[in-house]
Amino acid sequence: MAPSIDELSVSTIRGLSVDQVNAAQSGHPGAPLGLAPAAHALWRKMRFNPQDPKWINRDRFVLSNGHACALLYSLLVLYGYDLTVDDLKQFRQLNSKTPGHPERLDTPGVEVTSGPLGQGISNAVGMAIAQKQLAATYNKPDFPISDSKVYAFMGDGCLMEGVSSEASSLAGHLQLDNLIAFWDDNRISIDGDTACAFTENVPERYRAYGWHILEVPDANTDIDAISKAIDEAKTIKNKPVLIRLVTTIGYGSKAAGTGGVHGAPLKADDLKQLKKSWGFDEESNFYIPDEVANYFAEKVESNKKEQQAWEKLFNEYKQKYPKEGADLQRRLEGKFPDGWKDNIPTFTAKDKALATRKLSEGVLDYLYGVLPELIGGSADLTGSNLTRPEASTDFQPPSTNLGNYGGRYIRYGVREHGMGAIMNGIDTFGAHSRTYGGTFLNFVSYAAGALRLSALSHQGVIWVATHDSIGLGEDGPTHQPIETLAHFRAIPNLSVWRPADGNEVSAAYIAAIEAVDHPSVIALTRQNVPHLENSSIEQALKGGYTVWPVEDGKPDLIIVSTGSEVSISIDAAKLLAKEKNQKVAVVSIPDFHTFDQQPIDYRLSILPDGVPIMSVEVLSTFGWSKYSHEHFGLNRFGASGKAADLYKFFGFTPEGIAERAEKTIQFYKGKVVGSPVHTAFEELK
Amino acid sequence: MAPSIDELSVSTIRGLSVDQVNAAQSGHPGAPLGLAPAAHALWRKMRFNPQDPKWINRDRFVLSNGHACALLYSLLVLYGYDLTVDDLKQFRQLNSKTPGHPERLDTPGVEVTSGPLGQGISNAVGMAIAQKQLAATYNKPDFPISDSKVYAFMGDGCLMEGVSSEASSLAGHLQLDNLIAFWDDNRISIDGDTACAFTENVPERYRAYGWHILEVPDANTDIDAISKAIDEAKTIKNKPVLIRLVTTIGYGSKAAGTGGVHGAPLKADDLKQLKKSWGFDEESNFYIPDEVANYFAEKVESNKKEQQAWEKLFNEYKQKYPKEGADLQRRLEGKFPDGWKDNIPTFTAKDKALATRKLSEGVLDYLYGVLPELIGGSADLTGSNLTRPEASTDFQPPSTNLGNYGGRYIRYGVREHGMGAIMNGIDTFGAHSRTYGGTFLNFVSYAAGALRLSALSHQGVIWVATHDSIGLGEDGPTHQPIETLAHFRAIPNLSVWRPADGNEVSAAYIAAIEAVDHPSVIALTRQNVPHLENSSIEQALKGGYTVWPVEDGKPDLIIVSTGSEVSISIDAAKLLAKEKNQKVAVVSIPDFHTFDQQPIDYRLSILPDGVPIMSVEVLSTFGWSKYSHEHFGLNRFGASGKAADLYKFFGFTPEGIAERAEKTIQFYKGKVVGSPVHTAFEELK
Repeated sequence: MAPSIDELSVSTIRGLSVDQVNAAQSGHPGAPLGLAPAAHALWRKMRFNPQDPKWINRDRFVLSNGHACALLYSLLVLYGYDLTVDDLKQFRQLNSKTPGHPERLDTPGVEVTSGPLGQGISNAVGMAIAQKQLAATYNKPDFPISDSKVYAFMGDGCLMEGVSSEASSLAGHLQLDNLIAFWDDNRISIDGDTACAFTENVPERYRAYGWHILEVPDANTDIDAISKAIDEAKTIKNKPVLIRLVTTIGYGSKAAGTGGVHGAPLKADDLKQLKKSWGFDEESNFYIPDEVANYFAEKVESNKKEQQAWEKLFNEYKQKYPKEGADLQRRLEGKFPDGWKDNIPTFTAKDKALATRKLSEGVLDYLYGVLPELIGGSADLTGSNLTRPEASTDFQPPSTNLGNYGGRYIRYGVREHGMGAIMNGIDTFGAHSRTYGGTFLNFVSYAAGALRLSALSHQGVIWVATHDSIGLGEDGPTHQPIETLAHFRAIPNLSVWRPADGNEVSAAYIAAIEAVDHPSVIALTRQNVPHLENSSIEQALKGGYTVWPVEDGKPDLIIVSTGSEVSISIDAAKLLAKEKNQKVAVVSIPDFHTFDQQPIDYRLSILPDGVPIMSVEVLSTFGWSKYSHEHFGLNRFGASGKAADLYKFFGFTPEGIAERAEKTIQFYKGKVVGSPVHTAFEELK
Repeated sequence: MAPSIDELSVSTIRGLSVDQVNAAQSGHPGAPLGLAPAAHALWRKMRFNPQDPKWINRDRFVLSNGHACALLYSLLVLYGYDLTVDDLKQFRQLNSKTPGHPERLDTPGVEVTSGPLGQGISNAVGMAIAQKQLAATYNKPDFPISDSKVYAFMGDGCLMEGVSSEASSLAGHLQLDNLIAFWDDNRISIDGDTACAFTENVPERYRAYGWHILEVPDANTDIDAISKAIDEAKTIKNKPVLIRLVTTIGYGSKAAGTGGVHGAPLKADDLKQLKKSWGFDEESNFYIPDEVANYFAEKVESNKKEQQAWEKLFNEYKQKYPKEGADLQRRLEGKFPDGWKDNIPTFTAKDKALATRKLSEGVLDYLYGVLPELIGGSADLTGSNLTRPEASTDFQPPSTNLGNYGGRYIRYGVREHGMGAIMNGIDTFGAHSRTYGGTFLNFVSYAAGALRLSALSHQGVIWVATHDSIGLGEDGPTHQPIETLAHFRAIPNLSVWRPADGNEVSAAYIAAIEAVDHPSVIALTRQNVPHLENSSIEQALKGGYTVWPVEDGKPDLIIVSTGSEVSISIDAAKLLAKEKNQKVAVVSIPDFHTFDQQPIDYRLSILPDGVPIMSVEVLSTFGWSKYSHEHFGLNRFGASGKAADLYKFFGFTPEGIAERAEKTIQFYKGKVVGSPVHTAFEELK
């Protein structure tokens, strides 16, 4: 019996996928062979336009088991995205559009960068939140402007990772019925049969989270059953759906069902027998039967009509609801509201000393009012992070009576890593979302896996990271960051703000909100800090500036500092001027990343040749030598005690800083010192 | 009716706990008030000796919700550990024995450092693994040398964290019936009612993991029901047990059942009414009724007899099983076997080039044979990490037919964070465990929360972190570490080895195995590296040494490098000598932490004044300036492609390094350069 067009399509997808791995002699053929029927069945039902891959009302597809990307690339080629068979032949080669894991920026049609396990499914939760929020905000009777679905594939690896547990538990709580996930239940992970480490009852676990479970007992061949499961999943209300696909890894291969087929190319004879089994010429390579090409092209035409109908609907919407329509149009164009930052809080030295977390609260209150695209939350530290705008409503299923889907404040629970990955999903959903999440700075580290992906895939999420030093006091060293800023500053494409006062807090938020192409961490104090005499938003936006200049001539020493140590450093400078007649300038560097992008002349004007420079920051000194010759910091863990006691104990007082400053001045007396920003060659960026 | 002695005991525990928080005017009274009955009931049944808190066959108690530490400190005082009421009065004060979260090193009787949520319960899983392994290794008929239990308290926060999901799923798979966990189901987290974010069905989830569930509907008052649940839990076979304690946060307080009582001291009048409700003088403070003191002292006497009986049993064991007895005795004394490192692999430059992960495999094979206390595993990357010693057996429940509890190789599944926390538990269990876990270097970041606790609480666990750079090739930037070494090097008390060849791999393992007081990360290549002419274990153990000296006189330049870039740097030095007549020395710094501990004279002999120094490492340059004036590294994310193509593209070839070396030599010509290890003042450590 001749294969059906769907069977032929599946064989074509399988063939393109294994041919990529074979061409590269590197990659993962196993999952694409097992998942091709599900992928095909799903994409037949998805709404998308390859010519407009960013259409806001498209359905999203996330490949959380990103190592199976050959499968995704095959689909993108077949559906006519801006990707060709020639690109497939460059699979996993330097500077190709088909890297070894899906990269959001490299390949049109790839929604999120995935591969680090557990991230993709958690991103999908974020996308589903964003869709619900957008729909609740803009949909009107007869105007379902947003009604798309989010689909995600994941394997056993994704399910074992804690980040997916966190996100999945929250998805159940939030009743995200626009999220449909597929579990590739192939019983194989890299160490072999999942019997060796993963014997929990996954469907029962997801039921406990509040998900609806569907099962497809033979997803290797039963395309019809998969299609029916998808249809049923779309009818489920108030629950995300997990479809269990029982598959065979490497289906059809001689190594099917073994770990050997997971991450290594198929042998030549195996490839041949596979192609023969599909009815293809066994020597064929990257083969696309004409009828398959046509079949996919027809689907695209039908999809395009769906988008056209949506465009028509949206035009009518804009006429009937001009305010909402204009606002959404603006967001889709990626523009900010006019004058959005005009009235952000500013301060003078006469204003009352406040914790920078408190100043952050004021800014968030302000931003909430001017940016409808601002969606925030906290990992169960709302009252400590001060992240909830006073006017906000919680994002909650209406049945909870705790909020609604139009709410813009998310109660993440104690789930930092999940929050990080969900924020990436909210960001990537589109509609100009500006999203932030709060936790203690030290616990952003729990989310390191998600944070580096934000930076890698240019997602403009914002971490509101309070309690940023030993200044948090009694909670002690388990909660006091030491290595944290060094860690984050070493991540490319990440802004790490540590503002010193109110103006710098406002600057940090302006920069972070405008940074739609990179993430930001804003580190904030628990304890009060004074407003500085010479700070300004404009200066702080340069990433570094002289906040305490010497009156005339060359300083004897420059202190570079951040956050809560800037005002203490200025007090030290005053002390040294008064008691030792020494001229000490203080430079505030609220964000290394921004400062590094300033022209060399500017950086040299702040950190000139010929002056010794000492850093002061109550965290690890690691990395400070890029700006300073000597470093006063904390290269040990902190301690539990009152904040003031700790600052004194470790010497972060005007006197303690002045003592090190004097030693530094003495040490460099008579020596020629060059500015650390002068280098022999350019670093690779 | 007069309160029973148990009720009076519970009131005493509650009183001591809230008095601590009140004295400090800081801390968490809510959970201790709710959990005091369960803590009391449990400790009545636990086996421990306050005078010998490290007795190997004690039951372990882990307070995973570490913020409730006032509860634990109260118990330790009442049971006569080396902690007094005066210490309680110093709660949360600088340099006290009663810090704001339990610290393993600060307080006798505290098993693990907890507070970062989800860690403690995961540590408990590790302790349970260690106990099972010890029992299977040493127990003999009629000689139950190890038969202790592990108990853990946790709150909703711990249950929301992904790390606990990972560890709990594995605990179910491993059928750890020696683990009994208590869930403080008080329905309150910091953001308020758990209805706002945590509505999953926890018992069903744990059942899905393979746990047995018990419930205590009123754990505020029903001490008897708690006791019975514990008794029942101890009878359950082949499953860990979760006891759900329905409690009221801040039980008895006017603010009971609200978030307000979680993390703030009680008001004065509330304290008074509480004490009155217990039948105490309302002005009393840190009150311990005599009958309670006696009641606890009696329990200690009975406990001591249990230890005496065990000592007798162990003495008989040593006579009947002299080999096993001597081995266990050695381990309990914290000694290594004689000559354990005598035959560790060494290499000469003539030996075949190999990946350092492959060299690591050889060392692990060797260590497995000489160290019965070596227990390792991998987070589902065994075949890539090469972490499984050839002779090893898997640690598995016998019913799986995949191994047994005497096995020393753990299949962690894709659970890096869980693995990190479990390793801390194995380490802290005692008996000189030397434990390691494998994953890709980039995914150690998923476990950052556990790794920093290893360092903070001085736990000598070892991360075998392979695929340590863009040298991993095609998997691309999602898998290629950039910031990772900077992050880890900034963590105090952590060794981060990046060995360059076979001798350096052996040195890294010797150091890491001997580092019982601090953790180590060993970063290893996927790709082959040659063995160096001048490397040696002895030299590498200094953390840094000159591996390629210049023939005579002062070098024109010193290159400092690590791992796979050392041999390329030596090739660059050879090239510069031959083609430009420039004298370039190469220094290998396999571990910053170890190098920093060498005397200043030694460090200056390696990195002397007057010579420009350039670093070469194919990762972020952040932090390198502590050793070098100029830095050649990768301050951007990597790319997907063949490893050789990537090294060439980014310039990490002899020619590319030589080009930067020449620029550096030119830049510093005529300038006075000081050694970066010279500093004006000592850093705080």
